[in-house]
Amino acid sequence: MSLVVVGSVAYDGVETPHGTVERMLGGAATYIALTASFFTKTSLVGVVGNDFAEEDRALLKEHDVDLEGLEAADGKTFFWKGVYSKDMNERETLDTQLNVFAEFDPKLPEVYREQPYLFLGNIHPGLQKGVHEQMHNARFVGGDTMNFWIEGEAEALRAAIRNWDFLLINDSEARQLSGEYNLRKAAEEIHKMGPHTVVIKRGEYGAILFRPEGFFVAPGFLLETVYDPTGAGDSFAGGFMGYLAEQGVTDIGMATHQHLRKAMIYGSVMGSFCCEQFGVGRFRTLERADIDERFEEFRKFTEF
Amino acid sequence: MSLVVVGSVAYDGVETPHGTVERMLGGAATYIALTASFFTKTSLVGVVGNDFAEEDRALLKEHDVDLEGLEAADGKTFFWKGVYSKDMNERETLDTQLNVFAEFDPKLPEVYREQPYLFLGNIHPGLQKGVHEQMHNARFVGGDTMNFWIEGEAEALRAAIRNWDFLLINDSEARQLSGEYNLRKAAEEIHKMGPHTVVIKRGEYGAILFRPEGFFVAPGFLLETVYDPTGAGDSFAGGFMGYLAEQGVTDIGMATHQHLRKAMIYGSVMGSFCCEQFGVGRFRTLERADIDERFEEFRKFTEF
Repeated sequence: MSLVVVGSVAYDGVETPHGTVERMLGGAATYIALTASFFTKTSLVGVVGNDFAEEDRALLKEHDVDLEGLEAADGKTFFWKGVYSKDMNERETLDTQLNVFAEFDPKLPEVYREQPYLFLGNIHPGLQKGVHEQMHNARFVGGDTMNFWIEGEAEALRAAIRNWDFLLINDSEARQLSGEYNLRKAAEEIHKMGPHTVVIKRGEYGAILFRPEGFFVAPGFLLETVYDPTGAGDSFAGGFMGYLAEQGVTDIGMATHQHLRKAMIYGSVMGSFCCEQFGVGRFRTLERADIDERFEEFRKFTEF
Repeated sequence: MSLVVVGSVAYDGVETPHGTVERMLGGAATYIALTASFFTKTSLVGVVGNDFAEEDRALLKEHDVDLEGLEAADGKTFFWKGVYSKDMNERETLDTQLNVFAEFDPKLPEVYREQPYLFLGNIHPGLQKGVHEQMHNARFVGGDTMNFWIEGEAEALRAAIRNWDFLLINDSEARQLSGEYNLRKAAEEIHKMGPHTVVIKRGEYGAILFRPEGFFVAPGFLLETVYDPTGAGDSFAGGFMGYLAEQGVTDIGMATHQHLRKAMIYGSVMGSFCCEQFGVGRFRTLERADIDERFEEFRKFTEF
């Protein structure tokens, strides 16, 4: 069994108060697949150009990420460049070159279509829906979205998420999607749109899991230095879904509270590691023991 | 034994998205004394004018707040008026009339001077120091401050907090005081200034307790509706210090982790109740059982 992850594979240029990197491996699907791979077998669906480096492909393979679904198209890989504010709570996009990603039309290898776990990274909601429909046996389906689709593709987005089990979304986007400022009310509105499980990300403040029966608050980790927050939300997604898959939770509706809460903490753990180096740097050397150690740190600074 | 609270007693005019109140009881010392009174005997040091209403005095007395230290001066009570932004994360002061508070020179009744617990609400750091010096037996001393003193009275503030056991401060002010953006580093710098215990408030996101040996993160409560956040930080202070006094912790340096963590949660609990009605409204009917019930709710939504 495998977790199928769909989304962008990219090169990023990033400038933070701690330095500048002109070009490094990035993209939502890269972060999600890499972080989930510490917990479960992962399969990647995306597209790259012929500039995609062999060493980047090798990194994914080292983490046992199946790349049969990673299409190699003629052209350049998606490129994004941004600069973070001094406090890193804001970022400005300096350059976006969609390149081969502009024509991305995800086609799933046969073996992927039989998998129970699907995470739909932030792409056009119509494509998300199309992928979901290719997955005959998907029993645990979630995804992410962004303001761009909430504003411009509201109807397609509603249609896509109607059958999702969970939606992962940041606080401002949850407010935008629901029309409610208060997060409890926002989550209630989103439940009505389909997903019974809503995870609202709050950046450095952590994330909240909302289910009709209650909520759970996961704090962010207090890093001494945040080098680069790019991909932290996607790393949260990988930790959250990866852990549940590892535990054999094939139906999130039936997951125990204990599993869901731990998944939230593993999400926060992976998000925190992500910020410790530029890009996916930290995941090159990270080991499962480091993850469990930080999980225990979360317990230490929250238990009362 | 009693907790001596020094600070402003005021009338507030407040406008939030949920309504407008032209004039109601307020002031940091009022909130701190009222909330601490649910846990421990409290004594108030402040000044009011001859417009101070008998019913407001009665409310404090009903909560067994000792008012021998509440000076009645000839003139009007301190008045503040402000308006909150739609998301309540910003507020703008519309009017400040210091009135009798301009000449506030706290004089402590004899019996107050023997008490072990002292909380110095946000007033001029020179006055805070003067009060502290009047307390011969103070063994557990903490206080609050604000950007106005950090900017304009830096030296007096340094001198005041040097001998405090703990400083309660919001995140932006902690950054300003320490010159460090990262909160762990900010707390480290503040430890060097004197207080071994630093509590950094993060508004709706809760608060963090920093001690040289480690930190503890208390989340904010997710209210469905925030009516009025005025006084929430002071209510946190009252819950935090009140609970420790109730537990007989006369030396915060020797407090167990368990006591400190619970004090943080009781602080968050009292801050959350504060927001449920305008001004001190919620504390008119609140009972200790409600407090303990919400404390257990905090456990439920954070335990994993």
